[in-house]
Amino acid sequence: MPTRRTIMKYAALLPLSVRPSMTLMEANNQLQDDNLNFIGPKSGYSPQVGTLVSMMAWMRNTILYPVEGMSTKDLDYLHDDQANTIGAMLYHLAATEKFYQENTFNNRSWDDWTSDSNNQWVLAMNLGDEARAKIKGHSLDFYLEKLNSVRETTLMELKKKDDEWLLKLDESWVWGPTNNYCKWFHVVEHESNHNGQIKWIKGRIPS
Amino acid sequence: MPTRRTIMKYAALLPLSVRPSMTLMEANNQLQDDNLNFIGPKSGYSPQVGTLVSMMAWMRNTILYPVEGMSTKDLDYLHDDQANTIGAMLYHLAATEKFYQENTFNNRSWDDWTSDSNNQWVLAMNLGDEARAKIKGHSLDFYLEKLNSVRETTLMELKKKDDEWLLKLDESWVWGPTNNYCKWFHVVEHESNHNGQIKWIKGRIPS
Repeated sequence: MPTRRTIMKYAALLPLSVRPSMTLMEANNQLQDDNLNFIGPKSGYSPQVGTLVSMMAWMRNTILYPVEGMSTKDLDYLHDDQANTIGAMLYHLAATEKFYQENTFNNRSWDDWTSDSNNQWVLAMNLGDEARAKIKGHSLDFYLEKLNSVRETTLMELKKKDDEWLLKLDESWVWGPTNNYCKWFHVVEHESNHNGQIKWIKGRIPS
Repeated sequence: MPTRRTIMKYAALLPLSVRPSMTLMEANNQLQDDNLNFIGPKSGYSPQVGTLVSMMAWMRNTILYPVEGMSTKDLDYLHDDQANTIGAMLYHLAATEKFYQENTFNNRSWDDWTSDSNNQWVLAMNLGDEARAKIKGHSLDFYLEKLNSVRETTLMELKKKDDEWLLKLDESWVWGPTNNYCKWFHVVEHESNHNGQIKWIKGRIPS
C-alpha cells in the first residue's frame, strides 16, 4: 500500500482531481471515480446507484469509440431499406434514456409520454420509415449534444436517489413487475445492442 | 404489504419455490430471486455479486428470445462474406465467458489460454474466416449446451466470491487497471452487442 508520502511524491503524475491535501482514502476513492474500468460504488451516489452510474459511463465511452470523427455522410449511410442509419441510432439512444427518465423520475407512462404533441424525441424513439426520411444531414456533434444533455439530467437525478429507490418494483410495467435497476440496466445494455449494429454497419460503408 | 395469511392464501398461485412455511421476508426474497426483472442482490451471493448475477440472468434470457426454435439452416445463414453466422456468435458468447472464467477465477492470461493446444474455444473466440468455414451444421441445442454449461461454472464460482473480490483491480489488464466487476459487466454487455447483430441478421434471412 502506498504511504501518504508516496501519494504526495507522485501527486504530479496523478490526475488533477487527486490533490496532495487529500487523505489516502479520499485519494483512493478519487482514483476509482476517475477510472472508467472500475465498476462499483462511486462518490456522491449510494452504493448500487454508483455502480449503475459507473456502468453507464463505461458503456457510453465504449459506444463512442466507433463513431469518433465520423462524417455526416457516414452517419447518414443506409445499408438497406430496412436498416437504420448510425446517426438515427445515436439519436434513438438519447431518446430511450429520455423516456426512462420520464418514466422512472416523473412516473410518466409510455402512452402519456408519446402523446405529448411537443415531444421531439418520439421520431428517434420509434425509428422506422419516418426516421429514415427525416433524421439526416446532422453532424456528429448534433447527436453528441443530445446524448450529453440527456445524460446530464440522468446523473443529476440519480444523485438524489438511494438504493431503496433503485430496487423498487413497478408492478404495472409492460414486461411484468420490474424494478428501477432493471429499467436502467436495460438503458445501458440497449446501448451495447445498437453498438453491435453500428460497428456492423460501419464495416460496410463503401469507402 | 401482504400479511402472512395472504401469503398462505395465495401460496397456490405463487411459484413453487415460495412455500407457506417461509417467513414473509424469506418469501419476499424468494419472489425477488425468481423475478428476472428484479436487478439487485440475490440470495446465496454477496450484494454486488448478486446484482451482477441478476444482470447475467436477465441478459441471457433476452438474447435467447430471438433464436428460440431457430433451425440449423438459419443458424448457419451467412449474410455476406464478412459476417458471422448466428450460430457462431452464440458459440462466441460461450467462449468469451469461458475466457473470463479462466482469467478472473484462475488468473490465466490471454496468451496462456489461447496457447493451450487442447483449447476447443479459441476458434469460436476468434471468429473470422476459420470460424466461418468450420462452425456449421449444429442444431440450436449444441449452442445452448455450450452456453449453459459455461454459465453453470460461472455461477458456482461466483457463489464463493465476495464484493471485495468483485471490486479488485487487475493492474496489468490490456485496457489499463480494470476490476473484476468491469470484466464481468463486459461479458454481459458483450451479449447485448452480439444480440443487436443477431436480430439484424435474423431480419434478413431469406424466408
